[in-house]
Amino acid sequence: MMRIAVDAMGGDFGASPLVEGAISALKEKNFTLVLVGNEEVLRPLVPSSFANRVQIVHCDDVITMDDLATSAIKRKNSSIYVAIDMLKNKSVDAVVSAGHSGATMSLATLRIGRLSGISRPAICTLMPRIDGNKSLVVDAGANVDCKAENLFEFGIMGHEYACSILKYQNARIGILSNGEEECKGNEISKNAFMYLKSHPSFIGNIEGNNIFDASVEVIVCDGFVGNIVLKTSEGVADSIVYLLKTYIKSSPLGTFGSLFLKSVFSKLKKQIDYAEYGGAPLLGIDGNVIICHGKSNSKAMKNAIFQAIASIENNINDRILSALAKYKS
Amino acid sequence: MMRIAVDAMGGDFGASPLVEGAISALKEKNFTLVLVGNEEVLRPLVPSSFANRVQIVHCDDVITMDDLATSAIKRKNSSIYVAIDMLKNKSVDAVVSAGHSGATMSLATLRIGRLSGISRPAICTLMPRIDGNKSLVVDAGANVDCKAENLFEFGIMGHEYACSILKYQNARIGILSNGEEECKGNEISKNAFMYLKSHPSFIGNIEGNNIFDASVEVIVCDGFVGNIVLKTSEGVADSIVYLLKTYIKSSPLGTFGSLFLKSVFSKLKKQIDYAEYGGAPLLGIDGNVIICHGKSNSKAMKNAIFQAIASIENNINDRILSALAKYKS
Repeated sequence: MMRIAVDAMGGDFGASPLVEGAISALKEKNFTLVLVGNEEVLRPLVPSSFANRVQIVHCDDVITMDDLATSAIKRKNSSIYVAIDMLKNKSVDAVVSAGHSGATMSLATLRIGRLSGISRPAICTLMPRIDGNKSLVVDAGANVDCKAENLFEFGIMGHEYACSILKYQNARIGILSNGEEECKGNEISKNAFMYLKSHPSFIGNIEGNNIFDASVEVIVCDGFVGNIVLKTSEGVADSIVYLLKTYIKSSPLGTFGSLFLKSVFSKLKKQIDYAEYGGAPLLGIDGNVIICHGKSNSKAMKNAIFQAIASIENNINDRILSALAKYKS
Repeated sequence: MMRIAVDAMGGDFGASPLVEGAISALKEKNFTLVLVGNEEVLRPLVPSSFANRVQIVHCDDVITMDDLATSAIKRKNSSIYVAIDMLKNKSVDAVVSAGHSGATMSLATLRIGRLSGISRPAICTLMPRIDGNKSLVVDAGANVDCKAENLFEFGIMGHEYACSILKYQNARIGILSNGEEECKGNEISKNAFMYLKSHPSFIGNIEGNNIFDASVEVIVCDGFVGNIVLKTSEGVADSIVYLLKTYIKSSPLGTFGSLFLKSVFSKLKKQIDYAEYGGAPLLGIDGNVIICHGKSNSKAMKNAIFQAIASIENNINDRILSALAKYKS
């Protein structure tokens, strides 16, 4: 039986929505849920009808958003440390965490280790696009200063994830740059272009708008740029929805308009809401780790667990290793 | 009398909308318009009632979007070369160009030269924000690989532009980064943080969403990141408008809804459309140069000319020189 550990303590809204989401996942998929955290908090959140499919692993400590990621390695009784160690010891098959993402990353890297041939694990974030499918931004924030080799590896890992988990037949890889032409880019992205040229799915440089227009599936960039792209996208989306709502309210048909648009906005929300697709896989670790947004609601947690299950079932890490062997030369 | 040169040949839609916009500017402001380009094309576009306020400077060549920026320096009879040389010789007070932006930048830098103390001129793009005002992204694409000193200068120049032209009393400067904390950033942005600390309007690191939320006026980044931010923002805005229109069409009250939303979308368009605020000043040149989008319509050209006039009237370059003397130590 597949076993999935959830660090249920680190989220911004407490354990309740996270456990609720994990229980909904249990209703749809066959696995054992391992909740890691304070037993007094967690036990009452598990309905008795699911008690036989849930194991609670107690620990006292929790790493909060105010803690430094670097302190995580010393906090051996924190929920994320214990969850990651269970993955290291193979007593679970995956870890899903809505806690401190820096701590999760550094513990995963230091305690579990990288896949052979990967120099830097990367956060792989799913982005909505106009055709209703998703594109991947790798790296979305794990590695701020990168070398060209890192970007090459991000491309390989993202491609394998997009093909095996998102089921793209041919996931196109593009380097995020300041222009499409091969001559565009900064020093590092131009070097990465040379490395990725050997990959049959590499389509060259892409621009910011291509993230959403269904012309590329895997968007390669360093984590500094990736994080800025994510936050910028959220900012634009929030601002437009805010402006539209304000205009509608002040329009003569305001109340009617708001009612009419309610369903339209809820469709939009569904399409651009991260909760619909769960978390971000941490790729390049010798194990399956999904990092959720600190603000994850129960739906995000449920979907993140489904991502973890898909990663296990599709042997994503074996696929990455084979691809590296093929293209890294 | 103030004299403003317009390179009327390089736009994506030909000379017609550009000349039209320049003529509308003449209706509102007192200056002499110098149209640079093919006289046969330009002469018929000037209404006879404005002929005495328009000078046409003929030249045969035009640098198109397909040409390399590096070839511009040899094309001495191209419209942008001639316009820039008029600025160099002080026979005009400003140049507005909707042509090849790389060519405009490199000619401005090579033929006119930089302001003393500026190591790299920067493109300063105006961005819409939810309060209806504008923020500035510096650099938006001129300098792909930057040093910390460059970012420091971008901050100084942007601040002076925001205060003198956009009339902010205190234009806050922020470094675009992957987190707000001082420890966040890449090697270069972290060093730039140290340089900018001495500026009283520096508020530290900001994130992508802050570009739009009215919490900062001057957003400092390298041109690689700046260009990606611009294109990403355009992509998100276009995608959301596209999705909303699609949902509305497919809704039971579709036709009515579209009609209702027409005015709402046109308000949104007005607020986020670059044409509303014109072009992007090229800051750090010893002269006033405004770079327009290749797709500029007449309104964008008119507003770009107003920007040029404001730059001249407010002595933006003297202000930048004073600020550099004050903070560069």
